[in-house]
Amino acid sequence: VISGVDLHLDVPGRSLRAGLTIALREAVRSGRLPPGTRLPSSRGLAADLGIARNTVAAAYTELVAEGWLTARQGDGTRVARLASPQRAAVGPARPSAAGLPPAHDLRAGLPDVSAFPRADWLRAARRALARAPADALTYGSRLGRAELRTALAGYLARTRGVAADPSRIVVCSGATHGLMLLAAALRSRAVRAVAVEAYGLDIHRGILDDGGLETPLLALDGRGARVDHLPDLPGAGAVLLTPAHQFPIGVALHPERRAAVIEWARSTGGLVVEDDYDGEFRYDRQPVGALQGLAPDRVVYLGTTSKALAPGLRLGWMVVPDALLGDVERVKEITPLTTSTLDQLTLADMLESATYDRHVRAMRLQYRRRRDELVAALAARVPVAQVVGIDAGLHAVVELPAGLEDAAVEEAARHGLAVYGISRFRHPSAPPDRDAVVVGYGTPTPSAWSRALEALCRALQTVAG
Amino acid sequence: VISGVDLHLDVPGRSLRAGLTIALREAVRSGRLPPGTRLPSSRGLAADLGIARNTVAAAYTELVAEGWLTARQGDGTRVARLASPQRAAVGPARPSAAGLPPAHDLRAGLPDVSAFPRADWLRAARRALARAPADALTYGSRLGRAELRTALAGYLARTRGVAADPSRIVVCSGATHGLMLLAAALRSRAVRAVAVEAYGLDIHRGILDDGGLETPLLALDGRGARVDHLPDLPGAGAVLLTPAHQFPIGVALHPERRAAVIEWARSTGGLVVEDDYDGEFRYDRQPVGALQGLAPDRVVYLGTTSKALAPGLRLGWMVVPDALLGDVERVKEITPLTTSTLDQLTLADMLESATYDRHVRAMRLQYRRRRDELVAALAARVPVAQVVGIDAGLHAVVELPAGLEDAAVEEAARHGLAVYGISRFRHPSAPPDRDAVVVGYGTPTPSAWSRALEALCRALQTVAG
Repeated sequence: VISGVDLHLDVPGRSLRAGLTIALREAVRSGRLPPGTRLPSSRGLAADLGIARNTVAAAYTELVAEGWLTARQGDGTRVARLASPQRAAVGPARPSAAGLPPAHDLRAGLPDVSAFPRADWLRAARRALARAPADALTYGSRLGRAELRTALAGYLARTRGVAADPSRIVVCSGATHGLMLLAAALRSRAVRAVAVEAYGLDIHRGILDDGGLETPLLALDGRGARVDHLPDLPGAGAVLLTPAHQFPIGVALHPERRAAVIEWARSTGGLVVEDDYDGEFRYDRQPVGALQGLAPDRVVYLGTTSKALAPGLRLGWMVVPDALLGDVERVKEITPLTTSTLDQLTLADMLESATYDRHVRAMRLQYRRRRDELVAALAARVPVAQVVGIDAGLHAVVELPAGLEDAAVEEAARHGLAVYGISRFRHPSAPPDRDAVVVGYGTPTPSAWSRALEALCRALQTVAG
Repeated sequence: VISGVDLHLDVPGRSLRAGLTIALREAVRSGRLPPGTRLPSSRGLAADLGIARNTVAAAYTELVAEGWLTARQGDGTRVARLASPQRAAVGPARPSAAGLPPAHDLRAGLPDVSAFPRADWLRAARRALARAPADALTYGSRLGRAELRTALAGYLARTRGVAADPSRIVVCSGATHGLMLLAAALRSRAVRAVAVEAYGLDIHRGILDDGGLETPLLALDGRGARVDHLPDLPGAGAVLLTPAHQFPIGVALHPERRAAVIEWARSTGGLVVEDDYDGEFRYDRQPVGALQGLAPDRVVYLGTTSKALAPGLRLGWMVVPDALLGDVERVKEITPLTTSTLDQLTLADMLESATYDRHVRAMRLQYRRRRDELVAALAARVPVAQVVGIDAGLHAVVELPAGLEDAAVEEAARHGLAVYGISRFRHPSAPPDRDAVVVGYGTPTPSAWSRALEALCRALQTVAG
């Protein structure tokens, strides 16, 4: 019992941070931690659980961002006053500090789903269903519908310089699903470790981890990941990179580094996993083509519709080197089929009819405008903040003076904003080398965007002012 | 080198049968085993690989049914003359003995997808998209959209007597995906073994196996699974049953057995996994309600749209006891989201608008007619065959005189039919107690059905005559 709160937490799973977050969320949801309850300090709970303070602080930060907890200076961290904890199990799961969902979601990773081309999607579905052959509604090929794989081969070659034969394209339920399949395939080839960037998606590290793979880190600098360190990571048979737009830092992998990582792969038999999560959205110069085009025999390419259309579709793809295809196919044979054949045919129609391209072009203009407004507003109103990583994508990194990150996330929550601190994406072994918030500017609807930006400026002014 | 064929097979995975089948299929597809190549006898290859002859025979039988191999009396087993092995990787993957897909697919498990209500589905999608709230296209809740969970609660209560609160319904990508999640959840509760029926889906045993669970078997008799043997299976913390219509034998679990298995679960803390794969299709008497309704605290209910609509949709659900919900939720947190939110909303609309019920009713009439025609035709033309398990579902078991099963499958293939022998579904530890083919009569289109039935009668007459 700490601070009067009985925190018997059953912390599940491999990632302590994720486990602690789930346990705390469940404790709030179930009512075991009633609204208003003051939680122990992150230092106190860390000592009690025998884990790092950072881990507890990160879990608190996430739950504040999600609205389960509130944090006020001088008042510590408390359970938020939720309208009805029981309903949260089915209803929207992001009540805010005030008992309402955050007014604006600026967590990196989501596009503006209000722009999803509903009419285009329905038209494509209608055409696809009308044309669908008799077998289109059966379980279908484990690797995906031929129509979609053919359409993707053309689209990826044209827009991203991917060297793709339809037979090497594997359809999956988003990039995370692809990475999970890939982890199993790599494991079956006796790969023991996959190097990852010092900053990246924690969910990706978790997938590799759950797949029994170690995830040694590669440092990042102004030219991207230090792939020259790969030979120093014994057992690393593969490396996961975001070459076009490092997530979340935003740098593009330097051409010399691109050549070096391919050289490493060719000379060691290693594989490069290229997560091209937002390759469609580049603003200030020619798109950086996919690394995969340089070495289709060594690079696994991962793509998704989650940024260009909507994450709710759960549609993604891998382009797999010939040598790995059998392993991926075997993994697919023993995992459940998950991707609707109708949705696959619909996406194929959108790609073939260029509806997809048209939508991407329209969204690129919108996101670019938001990016420009974000940069201009912060330059004018929060000059101490440095906005980086803005050449592409749907997010920017707002670097803050040392020590201000957690306060900024909490202050943003008080202003009705859900936003992540960059520490959320930091590899557990990486040194905390910067304080920043990662601003996902893609998510708000067009009408909400200017209010979200205004709230962000105010929150950062309060913290930095 | 056996019989002049260099069969260096890299047999992957846990299930020898599945691994051998994949390895052989790849050898054919890649051209390593050229068309016309004569394979070693199942006895010879078994001796060479050091595995059971049954395993090899089962793999051969499956590949004959799929059309990769041909089997002719007096000529052994050969690689089929495929039109173009390379195309098989993307195109339809079921060339037949003559180099063409089988004319008719009578493999159990598929409905008549030509009857998929395309216009209804599109109308429901249009309505669902028009109504969808702003967050409907984001990643969504890991347990599924509230709209679908609510609609399913009503539908399952009404049609199957399931006691379901929306908060205990978990949406998944078909029943196999649900079973995979469940296996992980059971494993996290330290369950070591899940008892299975002596006949069942090999893919289900494989999922449990891959999940690190043993699968001891329960014998079957005229009253269904011998659940009274459960106390003799040490470590069995759960049992997987098909109570409404045993798959594939077809018997319904006797009321006394239903009571007994619930009593076992309550007294031991065990769980019953109820696979209600074709519960909608019952013909000759009142539907057998779900076992789950009797003990919602002890039964996990698994359902799917694969029989009532189409497997290509990849939509299914679980109804989970309160005590297991946290475990399933934790598993869902670390597995990729796979189910399109749009598809979930579309299905919810079909359920709420009763379009789903209407389609099920129409299909029930059609399938019942086919079942009656099958029974009548075999009674008249193959009197030695006994058709059993016909009260429900989309398949029937055609029992044959001892020793005729493999010949019947092969003869059916020669008549352009893909059909499974019942040994495919037999637990590896179960005694081979019957020869039968499992006829999936749901799959052919209405116009093809009478020809498929005619071909089946001829094939069985040839074998049994």
